[in-house]
Amino acid sequence: MSRLIGVGVGPGDPELVTVKGVNALRAADVVVVPVMDGGERGRAEATVLHYVPAGKVVRVVFALNERTDRARREAAWDAAGERLAGLLREHGAVAFATIGDPNVYSTFTYLAQTLVALVPDTVVETVPGITAMQELAARSGAVLTEGTEPLTLVPVTAGAAVLKDALAGPGTVVAYKFGRQAGEVAEALRETGRIGDAVWGSALGLPEESVRPAAELDGAPLPYLSTLIAPPRRDGGRGGKL
Amino acid sequence: MSRLIGVGVGPGDPELVTVKGVNALRAADVVVVPVMDGGERGRAEATVLHYVPAGKVVRVVFALNERTDRARREAAWDAAGERLAGLLREHGAVAFATIGDPNVYSTFTYLAQTLVALVPDTVVETVPGITAMQELAARSGAVLTEGTEPLTLVPVTAGAAVLKDALAGPGTVVAYKFGRQAGEVAEALRETGRIGDAVWGSALGLPEESVRPAAELDGAPLPYLSTLIAPPRRDGGRGGKL
Repeated sequence: MSRLIGVGVGPGDPELVTVKGVNALRAADVVVVPVMDGGERGRAEATVLHYVPAGKVVRVVFALNERTDRARREAAWDAAGERLAGLLREHGAVAFATIGDPNVYSTFTYLAQTLVALVPDTVVETVPGITAMQELAARSGAVLTEGTEPLTLVPVTAGAAVLKDALAGPGTVVAYKFGRQAGEVAEALRETGRIGDAVWGSALGLPEESVRPAAELDGAPLPYLSTLIAPPRRDGGRGGKL
Repeated sequence: MSRLIGVGVGPGDPELVTVKGVNALRAADVVVVPVMDGGERGRAEATVLHYVPAGKVVRVVFALNERTDRARREAAWDAAGERLAGLLREHGAVAFATIGDPNVYSTFTYLAQTLVALVPDTVVETVPGITAMQELAARSGAVLTEGTEPLTLVPVTAGAAVLKDALAGPGTVVAYKFGRQAGEVAEALRETGRIGDAVWGSALGLPEESVRPAAELDGAPLPYLSTLIAPPRRDGGRGGKL
Protein backbone atom coordinates (compact mmCIF):
# COMPACT_ATOMS: atom_id res chain seq x y z
CA MET A 1 0.00 0.00 0.00
CA SER A 2 1.26 3.47 -0.90
CA ARG A 3 -0.18 6.84 -0.01
CA LEU A 4 -0.67 9.53 -2.65
CA ILE A 5 -1.21 12.84 -0.88
CA GLY A 6 -2.51 15.85 -2.79
CA VAL A 7 -1.24 18.87 -0.88
CA GLY A 8 -2.80 22.27 -1.55
CA VAL A 9 0.03 24.82 -1.38
CA GLY A 10 -2.14 27.93 -1.76
CA PRO A 11 -2.11 30.66 -4.40
CA GLY A 12 1.59 31.52 -4.52
CA ASP A 13 2.63 33.17 -1.25
CA PRO A 14 4.74 30.49 0.47
CA GLU A 15 3.28 31.52 3.85
CA LEU A 16 -0.20 30.54 2.67
CA VAL A 17 0.46 26.82 3.14
CA THR A 18 -1.13 25.23 6.20
CA VAL A 19 0.96 23.72 8.98
CA LYS A 20 -0.58 20.37 8.00
CA GLY A 21 0.51 20.91 4.40
CA VAL A 22 4.08 21.73 5.44
CA ASN A 23 4.17 18.61 7.64
CA ALA A 24 2.78 16.45 4.82
CA LEU A 25 5.39 17.74 2.37
CA ARG A 26 8.18 17.09 4.87
CA ALA A 27 6.93 13.64 5.89
CA ALA A 28 6.56 12.36 2.31
CA ASP A 29 9.35 10.29 0.74
CA VAL A 30 9.20 12.42 -2.40
CA VAL A 31 7.30 15.55 -3.40
CA VAL A 32 6.16 15.78 -7.00
CA VAL A 33 5.70 19.24 -8.49
CA PRO A 34 3.96 19.80 -11.80
CA VAL A 35 6.12 21.69 -14.28
CA MET A 36 4.78 23.44 -17.35
CA ASP A 37 5.72 22.52 -20.87
CA GLY A 38 8.54 25.04 -21.04
CA GLY A 39 10.13 23.75 -17.84
CA GLU A 40 10.06 27.11 -16.05
CA ARG A 41 9.61 27.02 -12.27
CA GLY A 42 5.92 27.11 -11.37
CA ARG A 43 4.19 28.42 -8.24
CA ALA A 44 3.79 24.98 -6.69
CA GLU A 45 7.50 24.26 -7.07
CA ALA A 46 8.56 27.65 -5.70
CA THR A 47 6.36 27.17 -2.64
CA VAL A 48 7.52 23.59 -2.03
CA LEU A 49 11.18 24.64 -2.16
CA HIS A 50 10.53 26.90 0.83
CA TYR A 51 9.88 23.85 2.96
CA VAL A 52 11.67 20.80 1.57
CA PRO A 53 15.18 20.28 0.15
CA ALA A 54 15.45 20.23 -3.64
CA GLY A 55 16.81 16.68 -3.50
CA LYS A 56 13.39 15.36 -2.46
CA VAL A 57 11.48 17.22 -5.17
CA VAL A 58 10.62 15.43 -8.42
CA ARG A 59 9.67 17.68 -11.35
CA VAL A 60 7.11 16.16 -13.70
CA VAL A 61 6.04 17.88 -16.92
CA PHE A 62 2.32 18.43 -17.42
CA ALA A 63 1.44 19.97 -20.76
CA LEU A 64 -1.46 22.00 -19.43
CA ASN A 65 -1.02 24.93 -21.74
CA GLU A 66 -4.30 25.54 -23.59
CA ARG A 67 -2.45 25.94 -26.86
CA THR A 68 -0.68 22.57 -26.73
CA ASP A 69 -2.28 20.16 -29.19
CA ARG A 70 -4.34 17.27 -27.88
CA ALA A 71 -2.01 14.45 -28.91
CA ARG A 72 0.93 16.08 -27.20
CA ARG A 73 -1.09 16.75 -24.06
CA GLU A 74 -2.23 13.13 -23.91
CA ALA A 75 1.29 11.83 -24.41
CA ALA A 76 2.54 14.11 -21.62
CA TRP A 77 -0.30 12.95 -19.39
CA ASP A 78 0.47 9.27 -19.97
CA ALA A 79 4.16 9.85 -19.30
CA ALA A 80 3.35 11.77 -16.10
CA GLY A 81 1.03 8.98 -14.95
CA GLU A 82 3.70 6.35 -15.54
CA ARG A 83 6.29 8.43 -13.72
CA LEU A 84 4.05 8.87 -10.70
CA ALA A 85 3.06 5.19 -10.76
CA GLY A 86 6.75 4.27 -10.62
CA LEU A 87 7.24 6.54 -7.62
CA LEU A 88 4.23 5.01 -5.85
CA ARG A 89 5.57 1.48 -6.38
CA GLU A 90 8.93 2.56 -4.96
CA HIS A 91 7.86 4.73 -2.00
CA GLY A 92 5.38 4.57 0.88
CA ALA A 93 4.26 8.20 0.68
CA VAL A 94 4.28 10.40 -2.42
CA ALA A 95 3.08 13.99 -2.05
CA PHE A 96 1.81 15.93 -5.07
CA ALA A 97 1.86 19.71 -4.63
CA THR A 98 -0.96 21.60 -6.29
CA ILE A 99 -1.65 25.33 -6.22
CA GLY A 100 -4.84 26.30 -4.45
CA ASP A 101 -6.81 23.38 -3.04
CA PRO A 102 -6.54 19.80 -4.37
CA ASN A 103 -10.34 19.44 -4.46
CA VAL A 104 -11.05 22.68 -6.36
CA TYR A 105 -10.37 22.54 -10.13
CA SER A 106 -7.16 20.64 -9.59
CA THR A 107 -5.23 18.38 -11.92
CA PHE A 108 -4.79 16.24 -8.83
CA THR A 109 -8.36 14.90 -9.14
CA TYR A 110 -7.66 13.39 -12.56
CA LEU A 111 -4.17 12.30 -11.58
CA ALA A 112 -5.50 10.39 -8.58
CA GLN A 113 -8.03 8.59 -10.80
CA THR A 114 -5.31 7.60 -13.24
CA LEU A 115 -3.00 6.38 -10.50
CA VAL A 116 -5.60 4.34 -8.67
CA ALA A 117 -6.15 2.54 -11.98
CA LEU A 118 -2.40 2.01 -12.53
CA VAL A 119 -1.46 1.13 -8.93
CA PRO A 120 -4.62 -0.32 -7.37
CA ASP A 121 -3.45 -0.40 -3.74
CA THR A 122 -2.91 3.39 -3.71
CA VAL A 123 -4.62 5.27 -0.88
CA VAL A 124 -5.52 8.83 -1.91
CA GLU A 125 -5.51 11.64 0.65
CA THR A 126 -5.75 15.41 0.32
CA VAL A 127 -4.70 18.36 2.47
CA PRO A 128 -6.75 21.53 1.86
CA GLY A 129 -5.13 24.72 0.60
CA ILE A 130 -6.05 28.38 0.35
CA THR A 131 -7.76 29.19 -2.96
CA ALA A 132 -7.13 32.22 -5.14
CA MET A 133 -10.55 33.71 -4.33
CA GLN A 134 -9.74 33.69 -0.63
CA GLU A 135 -6.42 35.39 -1.22
CA LEU A 136 -8.00 37.97 -3.54
CA ALA A 137 -10.63 38.73 -0.87
CA ALA A 138 -7.89 39.27 1.71
CA ARG A 139 -5.79 41.42 -0.61
CA SER A 140 -8.61 43.58 -1.93
CA GLY A 141 -10.91 43.86 1.08
CA ALA A 142 -13.79 42.37 -0.94
CA VAL A 143 -15.76 40.25 1.55
CA LEU A 144 -16.79 36.98 -0.12
CA THR A 145 -20.02 36.32 1.76
CA GLU A 146 -22.05 37.90 4.53
CA GLY A 147 -25.20 36.77 6.30
CA THR A 148 -27.44 34.71 4.05
CA GLU A 149 -25.75 35.49 0.73
CA PRO A 150 -24.97 32.51 -1.48
CA LEU A 151 -21.68 32.38 -3.40
CA THR A 152 -21.21 30.91 -6.87
CA LEU A 153 -17.85 30.01 -8.30
CA VAL A 154 -17.88 29.95 -12.11
CA PRO A 155 -15.09 28.78 -14.38
CA VAL A 156 -15.62 31.00 -17.41
CA THR A 157 -14.49 28.06 -19.55
CA ALA A 158 -18.02 26.74 -18.85
CA GLY A 159 -19.34 29.49 -21.12
CA ALA A 160 -20.53 33.06 -20.65
CA ALA A 161 -24.15 31.94 -20.12
CA VAL A 162 -23.29 30.21 -16.84
CA LEU A 163 -21.56 33.39 -15.69
CA LYS A 164 -24.52 35.60 -16.64
CA ASP A 165 -26.96 33.30 -14.86
CA ALA A 166 -24.90 33.53 -11.70
CA LEU A 167 -24.59 37.33 -11.97
CA ALA A 168 -28.38 37.59 -12.25
CA GLY A 169 -28.73 35.82 -8.88
CA PRO A 170 -28.61 37.21 -5.34
CA GLY A 171 -25.12 36.25 -4.25
CA THR A 172 -21.45 36.87 -4.75
CA VAL A 173 -20.02 35.57 -8.01
CA VAL A 174 -16.41 34.48 -8.36
CA ALA A 175 -15.07 33.94 -11.87
CA TYR A 176 -12.02 31.76 -12.58
CA LYS A 177 -10.08 30.90 -15.72
CA PHE A 178 -11.13 33.79 -17.91
CA GLY A 179 -7.96 35.32 -19.27
CA ARG A 180 -8.94 35.27 -22.94
CA GLN A 181 -12.62 35.96 -22.17
CA ALA A 182 -11.85 39.12 -20.16
CA GLY A 183 -13.95 41.17 -22.57
CA GLU A 184 -17.00 38.93 -22.16
CA VAL A 185 -16.61 38.98 -18.40
CA ALA A 186 -16.48 42.78 -18.32
CA GLU A 187 -19.55 42.96 -20.56
CA ALA A 188 -21.52 40.56 -18.35
CA LEU A 189 -20.60 42.63 -15.28
CA ARG A 190 -21.75 45.86 -16.96
CA GLU A 191 -25.02 44.30 -18.19
CA THR A 192 -25.90 43.11 -14.69
CA GLY A 193 -24.87 46.35 -12.98
CA ARG A 194 -22.17 44.60 -11.01
CA ILE A 195 -18.97 46.07 -12.37
CA GLY A 196 -18.77 48.88 -9.80
CA ASP A 197 -18.19 46.59 -6.82
CA ALA A 198 -16.12 43.92 -8.56
CA VAL A 199 -12.37 43.38 -8.22
CA TRP A 200 -9.98 41.19 -10.14
CA GLY A 201 -6.52 39.94 -9.46
CA SER A 202 -3.76 37.90 -11.03
CA ALA A 203 -0.38 36.54 -9.96
CA LEU A 204 -1.49 36.86 -6.33
CA GLY A 205 1.42 36.73 -3.92
CA LEU A 206 3.99 36.97 -6.71
CA PRO A 207 6.12 39.99 -7.64
CA GLU A 208 3.95 40.71 -10.70
CA GLU A 209 0.75 40.65 -8.60
CA SER A 210 -2.09 42.83 -9.86
CA VAL A 211 -5.26 43.65 -7.87
CA ARG A 212 -7.57 46.22 -9.48
CA PRO A 213 -11.20 47.34 -9.70
CA ALA A 214 -12.99 45.42 -12.45
CA ALA A 215 -14.17 48.77 -13.88
CA GLU A 216 -10.62 49.18 -15.20
CA LEU A 217 -10.92 46.05 -17.34
CA ASP A 218 -10.70 47.23 -20.92
CA GLY A 219 -11.42 43.88 -22.53
CA ALA A 220 -7.79 43.05 -23.30
CA PRO A 221 -6.79 39.45 -22.53
CA LEU A 222 -5.62 38.79 -18.96
CA PRO A 223 -3.47 36.01 -17.51
CA TYR A 224 -5.28 32.63 -17.54
CA LEU A 225 -5.18 32.38 -13.76
CA SER A 226 -7.08 35.63 -13.24
CA THR A 227 -9.70 35.70 -10.48
CA LEU A 228 -12.67 38.02 -10.17
CA ILE A 229 -14.95 38.69 -7.19
CA ALA A 230 -18.30 40.38 -7.85
CA PRO A 231 -20.10 40.91 -4.52
CA PRO A 232 -23.85 41.59 -4.50
CA ARG A 233 -25.17 45.08 -3.73
CA ARG A 234 -25.09 45.23 0.07
CA ASP A 235 -27.44 47.44 2.10
CA GLY A 236 -25.38 49.60 4.36
CA GLY A 237 -22.21 48.36 2.70
CA ARG A 238 -19.06 48.65 4.75
CA GLY A 239 -20.71 50.92 7.29
CA GLY A 240 -23.46 48.44 8.25
CA LYS A 241 -23.87 46.69 11.55
CA LEU A 242 -25.12 43.34 12.82
CA MET B 1 -3.03 53.96 13.55
CA SER B 2 -3.80 50.44 14.75
CA ARG B 3 -4.10 47.23 12.75
CA LEU B 4 -7.05 44.90 13.23
CA ILE B 5 -6.16 41.55 11.66
CA GLY B 6 -8.85 38.95 11.07
CA VAL B 7 -7.05 35.62 11.08
CA GLY B 8 -8.81 32.56 9.68
CA VAL B 9 -7.82 29.63 11.89
CA GLY B 10 -9.52 26.91 9.85
CA PRO B 11 -12.27 24.46 10.77
CA GLY B 12 -10.94 23.10 14.05
CA ASP B 13 -7.81 21.01 13.41
CA PRO B 14 -4.99 23.19 14.79
CA GLU B 15 -2.74 22.07 11.90
CA LEU B 16 -5.13 23.66 9.40
CA VAL B 17 -3.88 27.17 10.10
CA THR B 18 -1.59 28.69 7.49
CA VAL B 19 2.00 29.63 8.27
CA LYS B 20 0.96 33.24 7.64
CA GLY B 21 -1.87 32.88 10.14
CA VAL B 22 0.45 31.46 12.81
CA ASN B 23 2.90 34.31 12.20
CA ALA B 24 0.12 36.92 12.40
CA LEU B 25 -1.17 35.48 15.70
CA ARG B 26 2.36 35.49 17.14
CA ALA B 27 3.22 38.98 15.89
CA ALA B 28 0.06 40.62 17.26
CA ASP B 29 0.12 42.38 20.63
CA VAL B 30 -3.06 40.59 21.69
CA VAL B 31 -5.20 37.88 20.14
CA VAL B 32 -8.94 38.14 20.67
CA VAL B 33 -10.96 34.93 20.60
CA PRO B 34 -14.75 34.93 20.44
CA VAL B 35 -16.30 32.97 23.29
CA MET B 36 -19.86 31.70 23.28
CA ASP B 37 -22.48 32.80 25.73
CA GLY B 38 -21.80 29.92 28.10
CA GLY B 39 -18.08 30.69 28.25
CA GLU B 40 -16.97 27.23 27.10
CA ARG B 41 -13.77 27.03 25.04
CA GLY B 42 -14.56 27.41 21.35
CA ARG B 43 -12.70 26.09 18.31
CA ALA B 44 -10.98 29.39 17.58
CA GLU B 45 -9.65 29.61 21.12
CA ALA B 46 -8.47 25.99 21.17
CA THR B 47 -6.59 26.50 17.89
CA VAL B 48 -5.05 29.80 18.99
CA LEU B 49 -3.75 28.24 22.22
CA HIS B 50 -1.69 25.82 20.12
CA TYR B 51 0.39 28.74 18.88
CA VAL B 52 0.35 31.63 21.38
CA PRO B 53 0.63 31.73 25.17
CA ALA B 54 -2.63 32.08 27.10
CA GLY B 55 -1.42 35.37 28.58
CA LYS B 56 -1.75 37.08 25.19
CA VAL B 57 -5.25 35.78 24.50
CA VAL B 58 -8.27 37.95 25.31
CA ARG B 59 -11.61 36.14 25.55
CA VAL B 60 -14.59 38.24 24.43
CA VAL B 61 -18.15 36.96 24.73
CA PHE B 62 -20.27 37.01 21.56
CA ALA B 63 -23.84 35.93 22.13
CA LEU B 64 -24.18 34.23 18.76
CA ASN B 65 -26.46 31.47 19.93
CA GLU B 66 -29.59 31.47 17.75
CA ARG B 67 -31.76 31.11 20.84
CA THR B 68 -30.43 34.18 22.66
CA ASP B 69 -32.98 36.99 22.51
CA ARG B 70 -32.29 40.03 20.36
CA ALA B 71 -31.81 42.58 23.15
CA ARG B 72 -29.26 40.39 24.87
CA ARG B 73 -27.42 39.77 21.62
CA GLU B 74 -27.25 43.47 20.86
CA ALA B 75 -26.01 44.29 24.35
CA ALA B 76 -23.32 41.62 24.02
CA TRP B 77 -22.38 42.99 20.59
CA ASP B 78 -22.03 46.53 21.87
CA ALA B 79 -19.96 45.37 24.83
CA ALA B 80 -17.71 43.32 22.53
CA GLY B 81 -17.25 46.30 20.19
CA GLU B 82 -16.27 48.55 23.09
CA ARG B 83 -13.86 45.97 24.41
CA LEU B 84 -12.16 45.59 21.03
CA ALA B 85 -12.11 49.36 20.53
CA GLY B 86 -10.29 49.71 23.83
CA LEU B 87 -7.72 47.13 22.75
CA LEU B 88 -7.19 48.93 19.43
CA ARG B 89 -6.60 52.24 21.19
CA GLU B 90 -4.06 50.56 23.46
CA HIS B 91 -2.16 48.31 21.00
CA GLY B 92 -0.62 48.59 17.56
CA ALA B 93 -1.78 45.20 16.30
CA VAL B 94 -4.87 43.31 17.48
CA ALA B 95 -5.57 39.91 15.92
CA PHE B 96 -9.08 38.46 15.92
CA ALA B 97 -9.22 34.69 15.43
CA THR B 98 -12.17 33.39 13.47
CA ILE B 99 -12.93 29.80 12.48
CA GLY B 100 -12.83 29.14 8.75
CA ASP B 101 -11.99 32.19 6.64
CA PRO B 102 -12.54 35.79 7.81
CA ASN B 103 -14.18 36.70 4.47
CA VAL B 104 -16.65 33.80 4.38
CA TYR B 105 -19.71 34.18 6.64
CA SER B 106 -17.59 35.52 9.46
CA THR B 107 -18.54 37.69 12.41
CA PHE B 108 -15.29 39.45 11.64
CA THR B 109 -16.88 41.32 8.71
CA TYR B 110 -19.41 43.03 10.98
CA LEU B 111 -16.92 43.49 13.76
CA ALA B 112 -14.52 45.29 11.43
CA GLN B 113 -17.31 47.64 10.30
CA THR B 114 -18.21 48.44 13.91
CA LEU B 115 -14.59 49.06 14.88
CA VAL B 116 -13.77 51.28 11.94
CA ALA B 117 -16.71 53.43 13.07
CA LEU B 118 -15.54 53.46 16.71
CA VAL B 119 -11.79 53.85 16.05
CA PRO B 120 -11.52 55.61 12.67
CA ASP B 121 -7.77 55.18 12.14
CA THR B 122 -8.06 51.38 12.25
CA VAL B 123 -6.54 49.51 9.31
CA VAL B 124 -8.33 46.23 8.63
CA GLU B 125 -6.44 43.22 7.25
CA THR B 126 -7.39 39.58 6.83
CA VAL B 127 -5.44 36.33 6.58
CA PRO B 128 -7.31 33.57 4.71
CA GLY B 129 -8.22 30.30 6.42
CA ILE B 130 -9.36 26.84 5.37
CA THR B 131 -13.16 26.60 5.22
CA ALA B 132 -15.29 23.72 6.46
CA MET B 133 -16.23 22.68 2.91
CA GLN B 134 -12.57 22.24 2.02
CA GLU B 135 -11.94 20.13 5.11
CA LEU B 136 -15.06 18.03 4.46
CA ALA B 137 -13.90 17.44 0.88
CA ALA B 138 -10.51 16.27 2.14
CA ARG B 139 -12.01 14.06 4.85
CA SER B 140 -14.70 12.46 2.72
CA GLY B 141 -13.02 12.22 -0.68
CA ALA B 142 -15.83 14.30 -2.25
CA VAL B 143 -14.13 16.44 -4.91
CA LEU B 144 -15.60 19.97 -4.80
CA THR B 145 -15.18 20.93 -8.46
CA GLU B 146 -13.79 19.41 -11.63
CA GLY B 147 -13.37 20.81 -15.12
CA THR B 148 -16.03 23.37 -15.96
CA GLU B 149 -18.41 22.68 -13.04
CA PRO B 150 -19.62 25.70 -11.10
CA LEU B 151 -19.93 25.52 -7.31
CA THR B 152 -22.62 27.21 -5.24
CA LEU B 153 -22.34 27.75 -1.52
CA VAL B 154 -25.74 28.16 0.12
CA PRO B 155 -26.42 29.10 3.72
CA VAL B 156 -29.68 27.26 4.37
CA THR B 157 -30.67 30.20 6.59
CA ALA B 158 -31.35 31.94 3.23
CA GLY B 159 -34.36 29.65 2.81
CA ALA B 160 -34.97 26.26 1.22
CA ALA B 161 -35.85 27.84 -2.16
CA VAL B 162 -32.31 29.11 -2.67
CA LEU B 163 -31.00 25.63 -1.91
CA LYS B 164 -33.44 23.96 -4.34
CA ASP B 165 -32.55 26.42 -7.10
CA ALA B 166 -28.89 25.61 -6.67
CA LEU B 167 -29.53 21.85 -6.61
CA ALA B 168 -31.44 22.17 -9.91
CA GLY B 169 -28.32 23.64 -11.53
CA PRO B 170 -25.31 21.96 -13.10
CA GLY B 171 -22.72 22.30 -10.36
CA THR B 172 -21.69 21.19 -6.93
CA VAL B 173 -23.81 22.56 -4.10
CA VAL B 174 -22.43 23.13 -0.63
CA ALA B 175 -24.92 23.80 2.17
CA TYR B 176 -23.95 25.55 5.40
CA LYS B 177 -25.80 26.41 8.60
CA PHE B 178 -28.62 23.93 8.37
CA GLY B 179 -28.74 22.08 11.67
CA ARG B 180 -32.43 22.61 12.38
CA GLN B 181 -33.39 22.39 8.69
CA ALA B 182 -31.74 18.99 8.22
CA GLY B 183 -35.08 17.48 7.21
CA GLU B 184 -35.67 20.09 4.49
CA VAL B 185 -32.14 19.63 3.18
CA ALA B 186 -32.57 15.86 2.93
CA GLU B 187 -35.91 16.34 1.16
CA ALA B 188 -34.42 18.80 -1.35
CA LEU B 189 -31.58 16.34 -2.07
CA ARG B 190 -34.03 13.50 -2.66
CA GLU B 191 -36.30 15.62 -4.90
CA THR B 192 -33.37 16.59 -7.11
CA GLY B 193 -31.87 13.10 -7.24
CA ARG B 194 -28.70 14.24 -5.54
CA ILE B 195 -28.79 12.44 -2.22
CA GLY B 196 -26.83 9.40 -3.41
CA ASP B 197 -23.58 11.30 -3.99
CA ALA B 198 -23.85 13.80 -1.13
CA VAL B 199 -21.88 13.77 2.12
CA TRP B 200 -22.28 15.76 5.31
CA GLY B 201 -20.02 16.42 8.21
CA SER B 202 -19.95 18.17 11.54
CA ALA B 203 -17.36 18.91 14.23
CA LEU B 204 -14.63 18.43 11.61
CA GLY B 205 -11.23 17.89 13.17
CA LEU B 206 -12.68 17.55 16.66
CA PRO B 207 -13.04 14.33 18.71
CA GLU B 208 -16.81 14.24 18.04
CA GLU B 209 -16.29 14.57 14.27
CA SER B 210 -18.91 12.96 12.08
CA VAL B 211 -18.61 12.44 8.29
CA ARG B 212 -21.39 10.38 6.71
CA PRO B 213 -23.29 9.83 3.46
CA ALA B 214 -26.22 12.23 3.25
CA ALA B 215 -28.48 9.25 2.53
CA GLU B 216 -28.20 8.44 6.24
CA LEU B 217 -29.80 11.78 7.18
CA ASP B 218 -33.08 10.90 8.84
CA GLY B 219 -34.34 14.44 9.21
CA ALA B 220 -33.39 14.81 12.87
CA PRO B 221 -31.73 18.14 13.77
CA LEU B 222 -27.96 18.29 13.31
CA PRO B 223 -25.34 20.60 14.83
CA TYR B 224 -25.65 24.18 13.53
CA LEU B 225 -22.20 24.09 11.96
CA SER B 226 -23.00 21.11 9.75
CA THR B 227 -21.66 21.15 6.20
CA LEU B 228 -22.98 19.27 3.19
CA ILE B 229 -21.38 18.66 -0.22
CA ALA B 230 -23.64 17.55 -3.07
CA PRO B 231 -21.51 16.99 -6.19
CA PRO B 232 -23.16 16.86 -9.61
CA ARG B 233 -23.56 13.55 -11.45
CA ARG B 234 -20.14 13.02 -13.04
CA ASP B 235 -19.65 10.97 -16.20
CA GLY B 236 -17.13 8.27 -15.49
CA GLY B 237 -17.07 9.27 -11.83
CA ARG B 238 -13.97 8.34 -9.86
CA GLY B 239 -12.74 6.03 -12.62
CA GLY B 240 -12.67 8.73 -15.33
CA LYS B 241 -9.67 10.21 -17.06
CA LEU B 242 -8.60 13.52 -18.49
